[in-house]
Amino acid sequence: MKYAEIIIPGNELLDGNVVDTNSPYLAQKLLEVGVQTRRKTFVRDDVNELVKAIEESLSREPDYLLITGGLGITRDDVTREGLSKALNKSLTYDENTLRRIEELLKKRESELREKGLTETRKGYARIIEGSKPIYNQVGAACGMLIEKDKTKLVVLPGVPEEMKAMVDSLIGKIFVGDRIYSEMIYLGRGEESEFLPLHEELSKLKIEFGSYPKGMDVYIKIKSEDLGKFEEARKIVEKYKRS
Amino acid sequence: MKYAEIIIPGNELLDGNVVDTNSPYLAQKLLEVGVQTRRKTFVRDDVNELVKAIEESLSREPDYLLITGGLGITRDDVTREGLSKALNKSLTYDENTLRRIEELLKKRESELREKGLTETRKGYARIIEGSKPIYNQVGAACGMLIEKDKTKLVVLPGVPEEMKAMVDSLIGKIFVGDRIYSEMIYLGRGEESEFLPLHEELSKLKIEFGSYPKGMDVYIKIKSEDLGKFEEARKIVEKYKRS
Repeated sequence: MKYAEIIIPGNELLDGNVVDTNSPYLAQKLLEVGVQTRRKTFVRDDVNELVKAIEESLSREPDYLLITGGLGITRDDVTREGLSKALNKSLTYDENTLRRIEELLKKRESELREKGLTETRKGYARIIEGSKPIYNQVGAACGMLIEKDKTKLVVLPGVPEEMKAMVDSLIGKIFVGDRIYSEMIYLGRGEESEFLPLHEELSKLKIEFGSYPKGMDVYIKIKSEDLGKFEEARKIVEKYKRS
Repeated sequence: MKYAEIIIPGNELLDGNVVDTNSPYLAQKLLEVGVQTRRKTFVRDDVNELVKAIEESLSREPDYLLITGGLGITRDDVTREGLSKALNKSLTYDENTLRRIEELLKKRESELREKGLTETRKGYARIIEGSKPIYNQVGAACGMLIEKDKTKLVVLPGVPEEMKAMVDSLIGKIFVGDRIYSEMIYLGRGEESEFLPLHEELSKLKIEFGSYPKGMDVYIKIKSEDLGKFEEARKIVEKYKRS
């Protein structure tokens, strides 16, 4: 199975002012192509905190490390600087994005347009040296793909529309996992704990499963990338189904 | 400033099937009493993954480490076992919770009632030896308060209604921080980047701030536990306000 980790910097997310819907979207998209998210880490908009989180994640050697957010151009946007420090790489400008920002400015109100491509605005085009730019179809900030040992580091904006458009363009191209077989099965009415013998059997099979009670209805979810094991698990579940 | 970390085990949260609303609730409640959340970590329902996350968090010595979820009694509920391994402490039963489970069973359908306090059901009352039980006003699972060096470890159920009731009972008692002064100030219409000189000034003051553009409206949030600094920051912000 291919594994991903997600790191999300953002004070607002840690202060509880915003509910995170980006990472569920990412995780679902990854799972559709057989990549399972193993860990999600939220850190504050602080370079040192972000550097630590990136280093820790890379030491666990996930197949993918996604970082979402912090690609704006104000001081609380620390993702580019954090990456630069964690990877010991300098920052450069992506020429295509610089041109794209100029194009975007032409469509804006005259006051904004007049100032043109300021040093600050150029910030949207800053990428890690040697990284592959991921173009933003919606906003200004450029994403990045960085290869680091066994890990593909994918850096995405935090604005949901921008993030989604970028991820959708990478699914099945950059993100390629193995097929995962998964099913949610209704066991019947009863108490969750009455199905513990089923859990024991599934544990012996070493298949991933979860138990989901809804009131007095109990469901079980089984998941495997091994079709044989998955089919075996299904047969076991059948034995415990209540009519 | 007092700091908290939150660890949340849950495959469903990592697979993107569920949006996490527990941690925003927790973070807001903590912030109200002056405790800032520094990191949130989501791990799979896997004992080893949870043990690692607990050990890593404790090594950073937060004032509070909250763990939410995994207190059910099926095999994918790994929080008690993870805590036992991470802290090298055995598990015991909380007598009050055992009695409470018996009371709860009396009110249930006859089929459930008859079997009584089974070994499995006793699982809801299992707590780490030497921990202080936190009673559940809504459901069966017992919470825990564990003192570990400088950190207060608070273990809560993942069911939102149970978690909320428990947290509300701890606010201002177990969770006590320092007063934090915070304000969201409207700067005026413009482009976010036009306010960078303000960001520079606030950075020099070493006060926490965030920039929040909404369309062409720009807001700034300032935050400090030092009233003097906070007032100074407010004056700086006033200078940059556009009428």
